[in-house]
Amino acid sequence: MKVNGTQYRSLWWDAELNCLQIIDQRWLPHKFKTQPVRTMQEFADAIVEMRVRGAPLIGATAAYGVALAMANDPSDANLDAAWTFLEKTRPTAINLRWALNRCRTALKLLPVEARAATALQLAHDISDEDVEINRRIGENGLKLIRDIAAQKPDGEPVRLLTHCNAGWIATVDWGTATSPMYQAHDAGIPLHIWVDETRPRNQGALTSWELGSHGVPHTYVTDNAGGHLMQHGLVDMVIVGTDRTTRRGDVCNKIGTYLKALAARDNNVPFYVALPSPTIDWSVSDGVSEIPIEERSERETTHIQGKSDEGAIGVVQVTPDGTSGGNPAFDVTPNRLVTGLITERGICEASSEGLAGLFPEMAQAAE
Amino acid sequence: MKVNGTQYRSLWWDAELNCLQIIDQRWLPHKFKTQPVRTMQEFADAIVEMRVRGAPLIGATAAYGVALAMANDPSDANLDAAWTFLEKTRPTAINLRWALNRCRTALKLLPVEARAATALQLAHDISDEDVEINRRIGENGLKLIRDIAAQKPDGEPVRLLTHCNAGWIATVDWGTATSPMYQAHDAGIPLHIWVDETRPRNQGALTSWELGSHGVPHTYVTDNAGGHLMQHGLVDMVIVGTDRTTRRGDVCNKIGTYLKALAARDNNVPFYVALPSPTIDWSVSDGVSEIPIEERSERETTHIQGKSDEGAIGVVQVTPDGTSGGNPAFDVTPNRLVTGLITERGICEASSEGLAGLFPEMAQAAE
Repeated sequence: MKVNGTQYRSLWWDAELNCLQIIDQRWLPHKFKTQPVRTMQEFADAIVEMRVRGAPLIGATAAYGVALAMANDPSDANLDAAWTFLEKTRPTAINLRWALNRCRTALKLLPVEARAATALQLAHDISDEDVEINRRIGENGLKLIRDIAAQKPDGEPVRLLTHCNAGWIATVDWGTATSPMYQAHDAGIPLHIWVDETRPRNQGALTSWELGSHGVPHTYVTDNAGGHLMQHGLVDMVIVGTDRTTRRGDVCNKIGTYLKALAARDNNVPFYVALPSPTIDWSVSDGVSEIPIEERSERETTHIQGKSDEGAIGVVQVTPDGTSGGNPAFDVTPNRLVTGLITERGICEASSEGLAGLFPEMAQAAE
Repeated sequence: MKVNGTQYRSLWWDAELNCLQIIDQRWLPHKFKTQPVRTMQEFADAIVEMRVRGAPLIGATAAYGVALAMANDPSDANLDAAWTFLEKTRPTAINLRWALNRCRTALKLLPVEARAATALQLAHDISDEDVEINRRIGENGLKLIRDIAAQKPDGEPVRLLTHCNAGWIATVDWGTATSPMYQAHDAGIPLHIWVDETRPRNQGALTSWELGSHGVPHTYVTDNAGGHLMQHGLVDMVIVGTDRTTRRGDVCNKIGTYLKALAARDNNVPFYVALPSPTIDWSVSDGVSEIPIEERSERETTHIQGKSDEGAIGVVQVTPDGTSGGNPAFDVTPNRLVTGLITERGICEASSEGLAGLFPEMAQAAE
């Protein structure tokens, strides 16, 4: 999507420097910085420090990490070492393991001398596929938005609420939850997006930056506000992304998603999840009991980064000295609270039958 | 309660300076500052700028404001003017209007020359009554905590979750939601409190400061975390305060309370509201449709105050330039989601029958 009028992806191959380039998202929304990634440690840092973030983008980044490892040393031992090294960078995002498995499986079949070039091509392919998947999710979600718009007086905006940043900078392009929004906006449907702040990392500021750059009207609200907005009829639909969805449609996403799903159910607001198929974990059924939830640093809850009046990026401590913070990074929304899953192949019910109906070959392979 | 070993109330009469003293809560939890309040404008500023905050404390402060007005000019006209001037400082807190009405009604019956002294005594009485009401709420809530503790192995803490700061600094002393916690802690029952951050103003930092000062173990969590904690059996009971509760038991409280009530219901966690009777609005029944919700400054959502590494109190902007913020300050939890109301007269169901049973004379007077 566009930044200051220039079309960007959130990562791209720099043929001149022969390395990956990323947007260092730690400085957003205040500063737009790009950065080359040239060593395995830089790949790990990029994921651990959330310079790149969002399940699909983490997967694509990891694939480029494997490509670098193969350029350095294409042996089986190094392929396994790279898998292990990259896999431990983030525990929840299923796309990370999906991308690593896909690369390792394909590369192990090849003679070592063919691996470097193929690994790089595979990373390009994974990135391009992500863009295409998200474009299709947008097309499918657009139909839902059109249906709501059709029931409103002309010019009255469709009001959508989203949590976290499931935007284009969390993917390679388009985003997942935002893809229907961008496509609806581009199709001339008036929108207003309620953007959840999404504590503790305030990814809502990233979503606001994205939407603002693309010209989509939006309002930034605290995570606490959504229930009240729904009670008062101010939300037509919720669309969120997901870091991992189980085969029966339980949705693991940024902490707080579950609370919005409860509020949506209590107020008869449709609650949709934008779901690229690589995000499905076919090995897991009951999300609440089976998915381990990443506990992140307590400093993320007790300190907040922002821009001072003088324009410097700084961090302030919100809590009293000595207070300890708890920081579960994700929660699980049970499938019973999900109206539907918007995938690249269409929209389905959040259930084993729904997902297996759209992705029969994946469901079967997992059995 | 205690601050650095000294017993404080959150406001007190300074006989030497002949004025009210308050704790300027804008600097908490980082700095403990007290401040005299000597003019009507300073009273308004104290409430509007949230130097004093919390429904009961606002009520008591306003009563001292009327006392100042009567010392300046005890005429009917000035009494009405003071009522109007103070009433518009905060739109949601019912205690504000309750305290102002109580003062005006009593003072109007008196000859003007008696009003100044009576008004000051009335403010003292309202403060002392608040302390006694909260002490009794604590006694009644303590029974619920004892029941939970009795079902646990010895030494295992009762895990309570609270939202916002319904603590002693939101009242004159004890707090409402915190009063059962302080009494349970003082009675030797092991506790662990999950403290909701409570965006946008982060009153959870105040609650953490209070609990820490009193030695009560606690963890500060984002508002998003509570659903996940309840899903995993980590919360035994929720206790929150309220700014206004309707005669049928709909609870208006800090934005986000409703989401916690939904999560509690979905996970069979008891959800209790600590309710001093002056907080009941007998004139309102349906909270969602009838209570006007204060929309506060958008800067509260886009900017956050904290302490820098150098120890200075400063503000950082979290959102991109130009992003607008929405800031509804309260929401309404329908009575169907409330397990019970903990009042100074005992615990009742959140219903017209429950409240009228405990407060028959008030229910009757309102008919």
